[in-house]
Amino acid sequence: MTYTVGHYLFDRLVDVGVDRVFGVPGDFNLTFLDTIVSHDKLQWIGNTNELNAAYAADGYGRINGISAMVTTYGVGELSTVNGVAGSYAERVPVVAITGGPTSVVEHAGKYVHHTLGEGDFKDFQKMFEPITVAQTRLTQVNAKEEIDRVIRLAIMEQRPVHIHLPVDVAAKEVEEGLLEFDVTEKNITSEHKQWLSELKETIDNSKQPVILTGHEINSFKLHDELKAFVEATNIPIAQLSLGKGAIDETIDQYIGMYAGAISEDDVRNYVDSSDCIINIGAKLTDSATAGFSQKFDAKDMQIINHRNTDILNYHDEDIALSVWLKELQDLGINKRNDEYKTYQHQYDVLVDEVTGNELTQKSLHSLMNQYLEPNDILLAEQGTSFFGAYEMHLPSKVSYIGQPLWGSIGYTLPALLGTQMADLDRRNILMIGDGSLQLTVQSISTMIREGIKPIIFVVNNDGYTVERIIHGEKQHYNDIKMWDYKSIPATFGAKEGEVELHDVKTDKQFVEVFEKINKNKEVMHYVELHTAVMDAPENLYEIGKAFANQNK
Amino acid sequence: MTYTVGHYLFDRLVDVGVDRVFGVPGDFNLTFLDTIVSHDKLQWIGNTNELNAAYAADGYGRINGISAMVTTYGVGELSTVNGVAGSYAERVPVVAITGGPTSVVEHAGKYVHHTLGEGDFKDFQKMFEPITVAQTRLTQVNAKEEIDRVIRLAIMEQRPVHIHLPVDVAAKEVEEGLLEFDVTEKNITSEHKQWLSELKETIDNSKQPVILTGHEINSFKLHDELKAFVEATNIPIAQLSLGKGAIDETIDQYIGMYAGAISEDDVRNYVDSSDCIINIGAKLTDSATAGFSQKFDAKDMQIINHRNTDILNYHDEDIALSVWLKELQDLGINKRNDEYKTYQHQYDVLVDEVTGNELTQKSLHSLMNQYLEPNDILLAEQGTSFFGAYEMHLPSKVSYIGQPLWGSIGYTLPALLGTQMADLDRRNILMIGDGSLQLTVQSISTMIREGIKPIIFVVNNDGYTVERIIHGEKQHYNDIKMWDYKSIPATFGAKEGEVELHDVKTDKQFVEVFEKINKNKEVMHYVELHTAVMDAPENLYEIGKAFANQNK
Repeated sequence: MTYTVGHYLFDRLVDVGVDRVFGVPGDFNLTFLDTIVSHDKLQWIGNTNELNAAYAADGYGRINGISAMVTTYGVGELSTVNGVAGSYAERVPVVAITGGPTSVVEHAGKYVHHTLGEGDFKDFQKMFEPITVAQTRLTQVNAKEEIDRVIRLAIMEQRPVHIHLPVDVAAKEVEEGLLEFDVTEKNITSEHKQWLSELKETIDNSKQPVILTGHEINSFKLHDELKAFVEATNIPIAQLSLGKGAIDETIDQYIGMYAGAISEDDVRNYVDSSDCIINIGAKLTDSATAGFSQKFDAKDMQIINHRNTDILNYHDEDIALSVWLKELQDLGINKRNDEYKTYQHQYDVLVDEVTGNELTQKSLHSLMNQYLEPNDILLAEQGTSFFGAYEMHLPSKVSYIGQPLWGSIGYTLPALLGTQMADLDRRNILMIGDGSLQLTVQSISTMIREGIKPIIFVVNNDGYTVERIIHGEKQHYNDIKMWDYKSIPATFGAKEGEVELHDVKTDKQFVEVFEKINKNKEVMHYVELHTAVMDAPENLYEIGKAFANQNK
Repeated sequence: MTYTVGHYLFDRLVDVGVDRVFGVPGDFNLTFLDTIVSHDKLQWIGNTNELNAAYAADGYGRINGISAMVTTYGVGELSTVNGVAGSYAERVPVVAITGGPTSVVEHAGKYVHHTLGEGDFKDFQKMFEPITVAQTRLTQVNAKEEIDRVIRLAIMEQRPVHIHLPVDVAAKEVEEGLLEFDVTEKNITSEHKQWLSELKETIDNSKQPVILTGHEINSFKLHDELKAFVEATNIPIAQLSLGKGAIDETIDQYIGMYAGAISEDDVRNYVDSSDCIINIGAKLTDSATAGFSQKFDAKDMQIINHRNTDILNYHDEDIALSVWLKELQDLGINKRNDEYKTYQHQYDVLVDEVTGNELTQKSLHSLMNQYLEPNDILLAEQGTSFFGAYEMHLPSKVSYIGQPLWGSIGYTLPALLGTQMADLDRRNILMIGDGSLQLTVQSISTMIREGIKPIIFVVNNDGYTVERIIHGEKQHYNDIKMWDYKSIPATFGAKEGEVELHDVKTDKQFVEVFEKINKNKEVMHYVELHTAVMDAPENLYEIGKAFANQNK
């Protein structure tokens, strides 16, 4: 058998940890899909459309560490750009591969299908430039080096890359065997060391230091390193909703979620009155801070982000977060003696005290929290679900998946396909509203086909509640068509016994249903929850007000 | 009431013929959706997702002449780019409007949601550059002129444009009253006149001239002008699948569909042996020519396309197709005396001779053709449907909607929403395969909500048959999950009596069902057709072979 460019590409992807490839077939990728199908360490996961594939690849990447997606030229790849942009914004390394027309067709400038019909073949890859950290057009000669270059960047930046692979090039022979592949980061210089010693002094001399952490810890999987640093220094830590899961919420130093003005009082006061906020991998976006409502002095924040560090009066764009974190650990910062109070979410309703009241957003999130178990993956769609769920107190090792920065509605449903397929043994729980579900609903079909067994909660509150809160409560543009949500799995091909359906209108029913779910782990569970149209987590009302003001 | 930028934008759109705006709400467009909702000549059509909105806007634009779409920044607009690119490739004027963050937020470079979180707000509009003919960022000062500039270009090029409208700018006051708006095209020069007189001589001296026409006639709505020219000169005319509907197939001069090697013999021989092929608004793409299999001499083709004319040794990029066509009419080309044979599709099965045989692609398209009526809109999805339907002999004034150049599967289902809403009185018939339907299925929900009454044929042949023909017949990547297709309308909210369901397995059942459809025009009809997995129109096998060869 000839060893081809296609073989090298997929061998490299396997080498860096990919075992499933998401995508949609098209005539410009069909022949190298054969290479995937015949690879003994790869599985092809065909999706119902390309945006759903991109979201699934994102979900898989968040859990697995890296992911790959194959679509066809033009029509396919352009349908993924919203998903890829989300992966860029929130730092998920997705290798987006486009199968293109042959290099011969391209060179001749032929008017072929899936193009604009004007003989140009470069335009679409250009569209990926703002939303990927590297792009390449493969040739037989450059393939091995270029594949390695872009995949290395995907890993080192934890961001998507784009590979344009003409279908003839995929079949061209290259020498077998992987090139050397090194993702070792550069160490800090003596100059950086000087900054750090000044930083140590600043921290040691501060009265009330606090660490603020966020999504970069999740992307770079630096949870253990961060926890070690926190425990070694005994400096308290808060996290943003953009990055929940960065710090184990069960450690003594964890004080709670920080979200500016809408944080729980103790957490807000602690952070806002701190004289030394150490930002490790956190980004203070509008949705994470209730519209930039943080009250601490910006000059008191030391920012240690991935290749974007602002400490004291110094700025650096070279050093990786992992390297900084290691240096911080070795810095010998004085250990504090204080004790901290972890903000514990006050449960509105306790599981063993439900009385049959109508389910509310408050009781829903309260009860859901009590059913979470260590190692769960909890996905919460932007809207009532995310803003209700980010305040939950998570057991150890729970992954919390949402999209608070990019905020593309419909994201979490296909993302669930990816997160579950990245680890079939972890329990996946999704909370998604009806409005969001409608955008990407057909991905449930792929879950059924793959036989995975997540738990899906569809919150039926009759429309875009999050938008109603921001503007136009009664405007019909925030209405959606009422669907028969419970018939969706059967419509999409679920056979008798493959999906267990549930309906929940009261807190008591929620508890009964979750007990049933816990008793049968061999099927997918699909639960329709009913909450009132304008019922929403309190913090969402606050965020909505902040967004409405920001739009004036 | 303050007269705002938003009012001007929508007043101008109404002025050029828009009466429905497609889109999806988002917090950066909500306030100016109010302007649409309160406009007495506009209706807001909310879609289930943004790609579906883009396809619907394309369908509406093809019938109505121009269309408008509103989405939100980043997440919304990026989901439309595949649809907008299709409108660009096939020349449909869609005004794509993005609601953006306020100019204040943008100027401050804030890390807000729906951005990449790096303070840059220009990247996404740049992504529209290759797929639109004009882009603008509105301000209070430039708004009226810029709105007019880009909408004028949309009309004059019949291609999409992009308007970025910061949400605060939409609410800024401008002077009431529309500016002068002129889409008059420049006339030809004396130089062009000289070319034309040489062209007349060439045509008059040719032995066997033939006109080849295509999609630009549909885009620029030049049907009457083309027909008049053909009838005045009595030169025979053939059309491409990319543009079917350009010429009235009932006139004496119509000889049939030209598709290179796979044309019906008489048509192929006539065109391929012509010494003067007058290309009026046609583009010879791979899918329209069975992989560039035309045999006539390229130097014998005179190309008269929109701002892209190659006649004799002259080239022009200024003059509009409408102007050329008018000049051709006035040119006094000698009238031919020949008579021509119109290629009539040989029906495989006649409606009154069905015997109950299993439905095949051949009998399906044969029977469907016999039910077409003047003024119908026939949509045919890329795949077996398009390649089966393009050979049908169309009654007068039938619009044929497909996407043979861009070829994005799933397109026709949301496009049907648009074509039907562009004219509620015309009968809309859609033929779409199961594989394509799965990509955009939720748009059926919008059709139900809007109460429109199209006729939808879902061809259930268990997977991506068109891809199987090109490559990987038995490969599982060409399989799709079998759905319960007939339950889709109910799942998406159809109430008792709103949608009539049908199931067709034989030719006899097809006839019975169509008779039923013709008896009840007050409901939407939804028909599941069953054909064999590898059954396809013969020409699709040929096209498939051509595409597979092209990919080597």
